Amino acid sequence: MEHRKPAEIERASMEIINSELTERGILLAEDTADVVRRVIHATADFDYAENLRFSPGAVERAVGALRSGASVVTDTNMALSGVSGPGLRRLNGSKHCFMADPQVAMEAKERGTTRAVVSVEKAAEALPNCIYAVGNAPTALLELVRQMEQGFRPALIVGVPVGFVNVLEAKEAVWEACLRLEVPAIVAMGRKGGSTVAAAILNALIYRAADMTDPEKRGW
Amino acid sequence: MEHRKPAEIERASMEIINSELTERGILLAEDTADVVRRVIHATADFDYAENLRFSPGAVERAVGALRSGASVVTDTNMALSGVSGPGLRRLNGSKHCFMADPQVAMEAKERGTTRAVVSVEKAAEALPNCIYAVGNAPTALLELVRQMEQGFRPALIVGVPVGFVNVLEAKEAVWEACLRLEVPAIVAMGRKGGSTVAAAILNALIYRAADMTDPEKRGW
Repeated sequence: MEHRKPAEIERASMEIINSELTERGILLAEDTADVVRRVIHATADFDYAENLRFSPGAVERAVGALRSGASVVTDTNMALSGVSGPGLRRLNGSKHCFMADPQVAMEAKERGTTRAVVSVEKAAEALPNCIYAVGNAPTALLELVRQMEQGFRPALIVGVPVGFVNVLEAKEAVWEACLRLEVPAIVAMGRKGGSTVAAAILNALIYRAADMTDPEKRGW
Repeated sequence: MEHRKPAEIERASMEIINSELTERGILLAEDTADVVRRVIHATADFDYAENLRFSPGAVERAVGALRSGASVVTDTNMALSGVSGPGLRRLNGSKHCFMADPQVAMEAKERGTTRAVVSVEKAAEALPNCIYAVGNAPTALLELVRQMEQGFRPALIVGVPVGFVNVLEAKEAVWEACLRLEVPAIVAMGRKGGSTVAAAILNALIYRAADMTDPEKRGW
């Protein structure tokens, strides 16, 4: 087995991904290619070349928001852990997850709702220009729709929960609302997704915004 | 969209997974079925029904170790975040990841190696009976092989890094070493895997050990 540096390994992996996409006859759009490739890199699953749907200008608008210091909010601590801290620091951005916040848990219990719902409410109030990423809870997507109907305009919604029940419907609902209300969106249609996918999408955007798409520029 | 409780959603999801496994003509072995189903639940990817390889008695031995309070070590903080804290607490177990440990970073830099390698060394010394899960770094698997050759006998190795370069070889190497040295192993052969997969495998084992496989018993 060869011993190569992480930057070299990433570059070699992306070349393999590119050539296998070509073999499959898949041509990625220039503006979204980075994001799709990084998700395939994180999952080794080429289905994402077909599943990921981008609203018009979503990548460009998200990159612009990140360059203006937009915060990133995730629905799980697992996705949060995967988001590049060094990248966000370079952009003067920050990352948050409210799921483990004791106040969120208490309020969810009192109101008989989920922590995912209360977390979205909290973000809509405290971080109205954030990027909100959902890798787990379809109820978070439905609450995002409700908050958007009431005026919430996040910089981007990443809607990639994984699952077999309620997930397809929630993704369709958030996609439709984002298009109608002109909120940028990246959604993994179908069942697939997860915290890894959410983090990979966020990192592709952060790297683009912070000029770190070339792995050599990530200080390894 | 129906509003159902998390426990109900999980149960309905597992039923869908079971019936689709049957449709595909896949019959899971009784002792490993929980683990495979939980990975499919976490990824919506039925490839794992074919990819996951278990050494003889791996599940039983891992469950026994967890019931004796074995620690869980992961190669990323992302996988660590996904591991059930309540489950481990019920078992008097604990979870660890040494990747962000400043001493590990310093030592890796001084010696020109990776943090993943130093983390394995640290676990082999400090937690000789741990369950070691690798969702990301193939170099961690190779270091596990080296440590096992020197006498390290973890309670289980979960070898599920994802990737396109060096990953297949590292999985084959750890699988061969585990069989030869009689260390229980669960390995996702091929390219696929990741932190989500590592966490799902660990949680299936933790739930089994803590009598929490039925989601109603997880205190939702």
